[in-house]
Amino acid sequence: MQTTVDLNSDLGESFGAWNMGDDEAMLDIVSSANLACGFHAGDPLVMWRSCARAKERGVAIGAHPSFLDLWGFGRRPILGERPEDIVKHCVYQIGALQAIAAAVGHRVTHVKPHGALGNMAAEDEGLAEAVAEATRLCGRELVLVAMPGSALERAGERKGLEVAREVFADRAYDDRGMLVSRKHPGAVLHDPEEAARRVVRMLEEGAVTSASGKKIPVRIDTICVHGDNPKAVAMARAVRTALERAGVRIRPFVAPPSSA
Amino acid sequence: MQTTVDLNSDLGESFGAWNMGDDEAMLDIVSSANLACGFHAGDPLVMWRSCARAKERGVAIGAHPSFLDLWGFGRRPILGERPEDIVKHCVYQIGALQAIAAAVGHRVTHVKPHGALGNMAAEDEGLAEAVAEATRLCGRELVLVAMPGSALERAGERKGLEVAREVFADRAYDDRGMLVSRKHPGAVLHDPEEAARRVVRMLEEGAVTSASGKKIPVRIDTICVHGDNPKAVAMARAVRTALERAGVRIRPFVAPPSSA
Amino acid sequence: MQTTVDLNSDLGESFGAWNMGDDEAMLDIVSSANLACGFHAGDPLVMWRSCARAKERGVAIGAHPSFLDLWGFGRRPILGERPEDIVKHCVYQIGALQAIAAAVGHRVTHVKPHGALGNMAAEDEGLAEAVAEATRLCGRELVLVAMPGSALERAGERKGLEVAREVFADRAYDDRGMLVSRKHPGAVLHDPEEAARRVVRMLEEGAVTSASGKKIPVRIDTICVHGDNPKAVAMARAVRTALERAGVRIRPFVAPPSSA
Amino acid sequence: MQTTVDLNSDLGESFGAWNMGDDEAMLDIVSSANLACGFHAGDPLVMWRSCARAKERGVAIGAHPSFLDLWGFGRRPILGERPEDIVKHCVYQIGALQAIAAAVGHRVTHVKPHGALGNMAAEDEGLAEAVAEATRLCGRELVLVAMPGSALERAGERKGLEVAREVFADRAYDDRGMLVSRKHPGAVLHDPEEAARRVVRMLEEGAVTSASGKKIPVRIDTICVHGDNPKAVAMARAVRTALERAGVRIRPFVAPPSSA
Repeated sequence: MQTTVDLNSDLGESFGAWNMGDDEAMLDIVSSANLACGFHAGDPLVMWRSCARAKERGVAIGAHPSFLDLWGFGRRPILGERPEDIVKHCVYQIGALQAIAAAVGHRVTHVKPHGALGNMAAEDEGLAEAVAEATRLCGRELVLVAMPGSALERAGERKGLEVAREVFADRAYDDRGMLVSRKHPGAVLHDPEEAARRVVRMLEEGAVTSASGKKIPVRIDTICVHGDNPKAVAMARAVRTALERAGVRIRPFVAPPSSA
Repeated sequence: MQTTVDLNSDLGESFGAWNMGDDEAMLDIVSSANLACGFHAGDPLVMWRSCARAKERGVAIGAHPSFLDLWGFGRRPILGERPEDIVKHCVYQIGALQAIAAAVGHRVTHVKPHGALGNMAAEDEGLAEAVAEATRLCGRELVLVAMPGSALERAGERKGLEVAREVFADRAYDDRGMLVSRKHPGAVLHDPEEAARRVVRMLEEGAVTSASGKKIPVRIDTICVHGDNPKAVAMARAVRTALERAGVRIRPFVAPPSSA
Repeated sequence: MQTTVDLNSDLGESFGAWNMGDDEAMLDIVSSANLACGFHAGDPLVMWRSCARAKERGVAIGAHPSFLDLWGFGRRPILGERPEDIVKHCVYQIGALQAIAAAVGHRVTHVKPHGALGNMAAEDEGLAEAVAEATRLCGRELVLVAMPGSALERAGERKGLEVAREVFADRAYDDRGMLVSRKHPGAVLHDPEEAARRVVRMLEEGAVTSASGKKIPVRIDTICVHGDNPKAVAMARAVRTALERAGVRIRPFVAPPSSA
Repeated sequence: MQTTVDLNSDLGESFGAWNMGDDEAMLDIVSSANLACGFHAGDPLVMWRSCARAKERGVAIGAHPSFLDLWGFGRRPILGERPEDIVKHCVYQIGALQAIAAAVGHRVTHVKPHGALGNMAAEDEGLAEAVAEATRLCGRELVLVAMPGSALERAGERKGLEVAREVFADRAYDDRGMLVSRKHPGAVLHDPEEAARRVVRMLEEGAVTSASGKKIPVRIDTICVHGDNPKAVAMARAVRTALERAGVRIRPFVAPPSSA
């Protein structure tokens, strides 16, 4: 069985006067944080605080770039964006976070596209290429987080990037190894213990099991857990506890900067 | 007489579907461009294009950070911002531009605060310190552009930054060497030839002459010209021509990256 | 031949410090102005000025609601918006314009959806229903501007709204009477005289002629002309002149408020 | 002793994906809700839901217009806004809310400026005049909520508006009857029971007692309570309970629309 794995969560999603999620609790659970960069959530103050607290706890940080859509929280699928423009939007966001991370003595070590951009880049070769290209332009050492079997994974490999394969603790998979749409019943797991057992099994088997029972072998570098509500935090904690009991060590897929 | 000087202008102020200024014309006139970074104007596409075209012409680029105020174009004085927050806002903006500049093979070599932030940082020690600190955090080699005698000049010096002293081609000065408020008649010069003669005289005398006739000795590293309307472009061109006729060479105050 | 027709244009698309189009010129050409309401362009100052100037010239005004997408100017197709939410977005925008119009003594008399929302509501029954419902909620006397044969026309009729049928001076039609996509060559006419002749012919024949030569009978209440660049203004002027020479009177499809 | 009074709170301050406050709880406590209109918080969906739920509970609604400053939540003092522009910004916001309220069968019956605009309009005659003028333009029957002794109260009276005088349950007053700045210790009361007793005393005495013990006679039409965190909700509830025990009936200062 795999003896180490990364646990990642989308954090830093507050904005201005509005708070989202319990980042303090989550930073004690995860080993990597994907930080909003201002296009769907996050602002310079939130990003700064998130970087500083992640550093204190030895949590690795990544950029979580999005379509420019604050009101829609980056969840609205936007059509017709040219890949060459998405490159520019992503470089802007990654660069802003890199500067803030550097200012607090931390370092951005990965990139994971958010929301609708992430979903679309998993299937659309042009958008996948754009996200991978932006990542490469911001640093050849940056790791691209992608779902096994996705267009984004392929794009990252073509660009010569290190790719971290991600599975979801609380989402059902179909027989192709893709996520079952949230519109379908059973697409999202709500029981922390069930999610925790499932994650341990994934690591034991080196595979995800689809809703129909099919085992799909995958490499698992990181497990995504959510933290935007108290139940999500409880599930994240259950997953971490179950992994540690099973003898799996939680640590970033990228070695943190030596000075950290 | 001083034989070289920089000519700078605030460019890259288009946004989304809206165009502002004739950047193409201005990039043929100036040696340095201060580029909006998305908070008052500019977006990733505009920034990318501006960086690429500046590079083609050997024009140095700087970040032009602003208060977060798109509708107000960064011109509205906003009170009560904590200097520590302004540091974060500026690091975000400078970092985003640095990443885009790097992506097109150019490099950000200076920082000049925009609009209300610039005006307030010329007088308010806390804001001046914040802008200088953000500049230093983004790169110790970054040059801070400041008005001679301003709080920003002093803050830059305290931080150990190289400071470029800026005069304005089209603005009247008072006896303290500060700009006469635009609200007063005669605060802004409109005649290109007059502005051009005045700039040549400033360099000959190493001084600005106040509205009342007083000569205030200043170091002049860069001259600011505007380019947001056809008349402004004509004035910028007149200033450049007059300087060249007087034997002054126009070039960036920072040597461009060797690879450029 | 039809002896009166309305000429409409999308105006009031400036925002903050940015200007778009030559609204002054266009308000002397058209009889109806579709005014941006702040979601893709326009702001309270722009809206106020547009309403006041339209009133001075006896130009009728309509709301031009959009997806919430300032950066994308409302041109980005956004998927997944629930029709019930689009109702709310449109009521907000129409209501804001109604209040500003009333404040300057004018009155909003029509609604025409903008950009991607307009394109999608021409085909998607849910979005069409949402735009029509929002229009009805803001005033049963409001006229809905729609393309003949579109889902929006049908939705307006179902709601009991008066519907004004619109044709485009500068766009090619396909054999179903729908617009040829801008991606295809010949989709947009650029010659003012040709567009002007074509518009006169449409009114003479009570039909649009498709790119392949097919005549599609349509009722024509209003003709859309653009005004966002000098060439567009010239075409609008040519269209108006040609119509007047042909004896067609240009006037709003809604009688202006009696006090105007 | 006064036998009826209104209890108001600033609600509808969620935005997009972000929630703020416990509006459900507060709508069971207050008799009037001041609803954000999109400039500092609120969006069409939030506004719609707030109007609908207020109507269900017989809670009166008012517009809560703000400076255009989403990131700063309307709390940043912005200088240099021309009063004539503030009129336009406020008419836009009030009109948008009026349309949404009408769509759900409710009606906007008051206006209260938010945050920095509210603070500044309490002292600045130009801004006060602008807010009052915008209110009048949106409906002569609209009630303007103002602090007794403020510039806004005077402006409302000059415009012929009905003015509702407001006191704060949890804020200390100085000897002029103005609020003690939040920067000073003791400016904000945190004990629900103390705030509740104080409010009852205000109504008994028809006066507020300043921090130094001075009694300042005031007319009290409405009492402001906050609801943006659990402690605030508890205080609001304590105030309501104490008033009811003292025999004071809580009801809107404006009779709700007859159809409600």
